[in-house]
Amino acid sequence: MKILIATDSFKDSLSARDVAVALKMGFLKGSPGDAVELLPLADGGEGTVDALVDATHGERIKLQVMDPLMRETGAFYGVTGDGQTAVIEMAAASGLEKLDPSLRNPWITTTYGTGQLIASAMDYGCKKILVGIGGSATNDCGAGMAEALGVKFLDRQGRFIGKGGGALGEVARIDVSGLNPLIPETEFLVACDVTNPLTGPEGASAVYGPQKGADPEMVTRLDSNLQHFAGKISEELGKKVELIPGAGAAGGLGAGLIAFLDAKLEKGFDLVAGMLNLEEKIKKSDLVITGEGKIDSQTRFGKTPYGVARLAARFQKPVIAVAGSVDPQAEILYREGITAIFPIIERPMSLEQALQGAREMVERTGERIARTLRIQS
Amino acid sequence: MKILIATDSFKDSLSARDVAVALKMGFLKGSPGDAVELLPLADGGEGTVDALVDATHGERIKLQVMDPLMRETGAFYGVTGDGQTAVIEMAAASGLEKLDPSLRNPWITTTYGTGQLIASAMDYGCKKILVGIGGSATNDCGAGMAEALGVKFLDRQGRFIGKGGGALGEVARIDVSGLNPLIPETEFLVACDVTNPLTGPEGASAVYGPQKGADPEMVTRLDSNLQHFAGKISEELGKKVELIPGAGAAGGLGAGLIAFLDAKLEKGFDLVAGMLNLEEKIKKSDLVITGEGKIDSQTRFGKTPYGVARLAARFQKPVIAVAGSVDPQAEILYREGITAIFPIIERPMSLEQALQGAREMVERTGERIARTLRIQS
Repeated sequence: MKILIATDSFKDSLSARDVAVALKMGFLKGSPGDAVELLPLADGGEGTVDALVDATHGERIKLQVMDPLMRETGAFYGVTGDGQTAVIEMAAASGLEKLDPSLRNPWITTTYGTGQLIASAMDYGCKKILVGIGGSATNDCGAGMAEALGVKFLDRQGRFIGKGGGALGEVARIDVSGLNPLIPETEFLVACDVTNPLTGPEGASAVYGPQKGADPEMVTRLDSNLQHFAGKISEELGKKVELIPGAGAAGGLGAGLIAFLDAKLEKGFDLVAGMLNLEEKIKKSDLVITGEGKIDSQTRFGKTPYGVARLAARFQKPVIAVAGSVDPQAEILYREGITAIFPIIERPMSLEQALQGAREMVERTGERIARTLRIQS
Repeated sequence: MKILIATDSFKDSLSARDVAVALKMGFLKGSPGDAVELLPLADGGEGTVDALVDATHGERIKLQVMDPLMRETGAFYGVTGDGQTAVIEMAAASGLEKLDPSLRNPWITTTYGTGQLIASAMDYGCKKILVGIGGSATNDCGAGMAEALGVKFLDRQGRFIGKGGGALGEVARIDVSGLNPLIPETEFLVACDVTNPLTGPEGASAVYGPQKGADPEMVTRLDSNLQHFAGKISEELGKKVELIPGAGAAGGLGAGLIAFLDAKLEKGFDLVAGMLNLEEKIKKSDLVITGEGKIDSQTRFGKTPYGVARLAARFQKPVIAVAGSVDPQAEILYREGITAIFPIIERPMSLEQALQGAREMVERTGERIARTLRIQS
């Protein structure tokens, strides 16, 4: 039997590779003769750099950039083994986790550091840049990012505006004459699973502003600033970004990437799967084992096990999913190509115990699955 | 596929039948075409009456007997559907759970009530009586049981001795002339998984006395009383019971059943399996699913999943075990005929949550197993 192990990470305990390796070890214990291939995955969010670097034998570049409050911070991005493609997680520079909860304030936070990551990747020689945009601390429509790449945002008096979503209302002119010349030669792909427009009740400020530190009044003002800024983009660059699904992702970074870098938005899982030839690998397997820390009814929305299952269903390949936590509602995934879902938990235990014992339990789950598959029905 | 579901109970949450029914419901959801037969089991301990009554469409008889302190108490035994066999759990009359912890005292507790259950079963017409002897509150070598069946224990002055392990040292003569006349016509089988002799460091008093309320001094005196009593049994009845493996079970009730009722001791699981034709049913199945609340390395010693696995291995039938708690050490059962062990727990949770959600989780585990078996390797 040919087994493809294509898992995501178990958040807070195991990387995608850890999960895959443990499953393989257990599986081979239970069924030593099988051919098991590993393909650690990600869905465009946290772990995407690791997954792509790992699968392509690429490298992880570390560098100093500006955090959301324009303080120096350590960040990273990945380059695939062929040196052609960079993978950036915006959160590595501009994520909510960069800030103490008390400092979260989308009025002033900026995506400037994300722009620096992009600049560095272009300097490295990458011709294709994949940007994962989950977990942002910002609501600046990617203005900071664009600034780091040479765009100037000026007020009525021709002065540079400040950083953050609060300053966008002052923008009178956008000057793209200084835009980094590598940008037109580079293809930008954005891993984006949300469909929020830039503004309005489903927009960036209303939906994600509160978790970034905005109170209701600030939400209203941020939204009105984004409207103003989108108007300026339309006037000066001729691009209408306000209502594009996904424009509101990452505090409008989606819109900014479209407006200033001509980026294309795609589902994160599809981007990763495409780069890793997941479809080809599934085609050549007899069984796919996938997994994620938690599987529930939300797993339908762009998560790795769902994406794997949909691809596998196309070729009638069975899929077993493994998870640290399986919600009863997860059963709806049985209709989407997942054959069976296995929780790893072996007895009543605390979350802490589960996180600590996860590797061993994943391994034993792999063994259990392999041993069950030996039963011929 | 023909599936036999032969499970024990999940202690504190589900009866053996509850487990079996839930597994069946889940299994048929996952694999609607299969033929699933239910055989709720027990290992001679708690639940044995239910399992045998249930499997043979027998009845459960309720009656008033004496508890370990000679107070009236409600008890029960089972009669198989053919009316020929009774199943008695000694704990129903003489169990530790009948007494408040503060009242536990093997110096005075008696198996009298167990003798009453036996008398009632013989009156009912049963020709074969199976006695499960786990969980006793007593250390009286079955003297109380024998008394309820007509045996007289007399001291040097020819007076009746008192009840309990403390009085055994006074026995000067055993008079069996009044023994219930039905006894010679009845076959007594004792479900006994321990191998303790009656006396000595591995004997009833030393090993089980403390949990029944004996302090070290009382343990010594109880042990010496049992030695004396065994000597009298030898003198008067010509039976040497002291060193028989299992004689020390249930405070020496094992020895008493041998001495006074000519009972045979067998492994509890073997007795139950024999009565329910488990072997025949396994032979006719393609897969056996078994289960118990907790599966660990101790499961080798007489527990239901182990017994099922050993029988199934004889006919090369695969066995899947399901449990509320699976110890990592349980893997040694893979060498004993268990193909795979599935914990039911679906996420980190407390024992209370697990007990409460057990039925649904067992059902989903059944579905998961059935769905996995559809994968053809």
